[in-house]
Amino acid sequence: MSEHFDVLQVIRNRRSVRQFEPKPVEREKILTCIEAARLAPSADHVQPWRFVILDEPDVKNHFSREVFSGPYRFTRWAMKAPVLVVLLADLNFVVHRLAKVIQKIPYYLLDMGIGGEHFVLQAQSLGLGTCWIGWFNFKRAKQFLNISKGVRICGMIAVGYPASKLIPKEKKRKPLDELVHLNRWGNRITM
Amino acid sequence: MSEHFDVLQVIRNRRSVRQFEPKPVEREKILTCIEAARLAPSADHVQPWRFVILDEPDVKNHFSREVFSGPYRFTRWAMKAPVLVVLLADLNFVVHRLAKVIQKIPYYLLDMGIGGEHFVLQAQSLGLGTCWIGWFNFKRAKQFLNISKGVRICGMIAVGYPASKLIPKEKKRKPLDELVHLNRWGNRITM
Repeated sequence: MSEHFDVLQVIRNRRSVRQFEPKPVEREKILTCIEAARLAPSADHVQPWRFVILDEPDVKNHFSREVFSGPYRFTRWAMKAPVLVVLLADLNFVVHRLAKVIQKIPYYLLDMGIGGEHFVLQAQSLGLGTCWIGWFNFKRAKQFLNISKGVRICGMIAVGYPASKLIPKEKKRKPLDELVHLNRWGNRITM
Repeated sequence: MSEHFDVLQVIRNRRSVRQFEPKPVEREKILTCIEAARLAPSADHVQPWRFVILDEPDVKNHFSREVFSGPYRFTRWAMKAPVLVVLLADLNFVVHRLAKVIQKIPYYLLDMGIGGEHFVLQAQSLGLGTCWIGWFNFKRAKQFLNISKGVRICGMIAVGYPASKLIPKEKKRKPLDELVHLNRWGNRITM
């Protein structure tokens, strides 16, 4: 049963891809990735996620020049991504603003992480490479895209077919036992 | 190739499960879900995620009485979950504190959403049900677990085998075309 397929295989193969083949990405595939995000859970089922697809080269290039300049030039590699998908949150008064006062957590960012990662894993399933981007000029992006009040930019995902000879190696990561505690902070598990 | 398995199948079958079989969950399965989270991308590869597994009934019950009382009693269903996994972020000065001043985004919450959802999807792959929880007494949780300074509670995931006759139906969701904009905010895609 497909249900018992191990998502871990897709997760293990995912890399943050910053070098892409120049060929365009089928818009239908991008929409399938957004469909995966649409099915994600969210605080109080508010479904805050909104997506702006930038896949027309002229628009994307103009946008890129605006948002990856000055201190944000470190993200310039993303100008060559065939598609940029901007992630926005449409904020809800009770769940996002009121609850933040009480819990001190802007839940919408957790939701955007959850929804955005559904996009990323689905892209991986379709043979696409992605990279989350947080370092770009939010203010200029907001102006360029003409985003409504109450809608917050949270990040961007670069998408394209990975440059085949340049798929990054797996990064060094913290070992599992550094991340896990049992019943109390500091209680280590012997693995 | 497993790579081409469609994650969408797992995503489509996932529900937020709030009623569980009383049987315990193998700790190894919980660790496999944390392994999936460990492999997630994060801002500047900081890997902020930390996990406290609460699977010993006495400790879990004591903890639950502390954190699901008063205004948080709406989350009491979670007391019956065989396992609670508390999600914590170990904050990094540059990426999480300094960048927040510039970008106004506490990136660690995006990261926790991303890592946490890897956990959730892997749990689904293993036949486990989960539910993200944000509504509980953070202060008491922090005291109970004896969490270090600089480590932030972000949420919790309830885990268990879903009560077989009580698997929730799919929720009504916003249609795809309400979530997607093309090149500019407000530009609709005809689908």
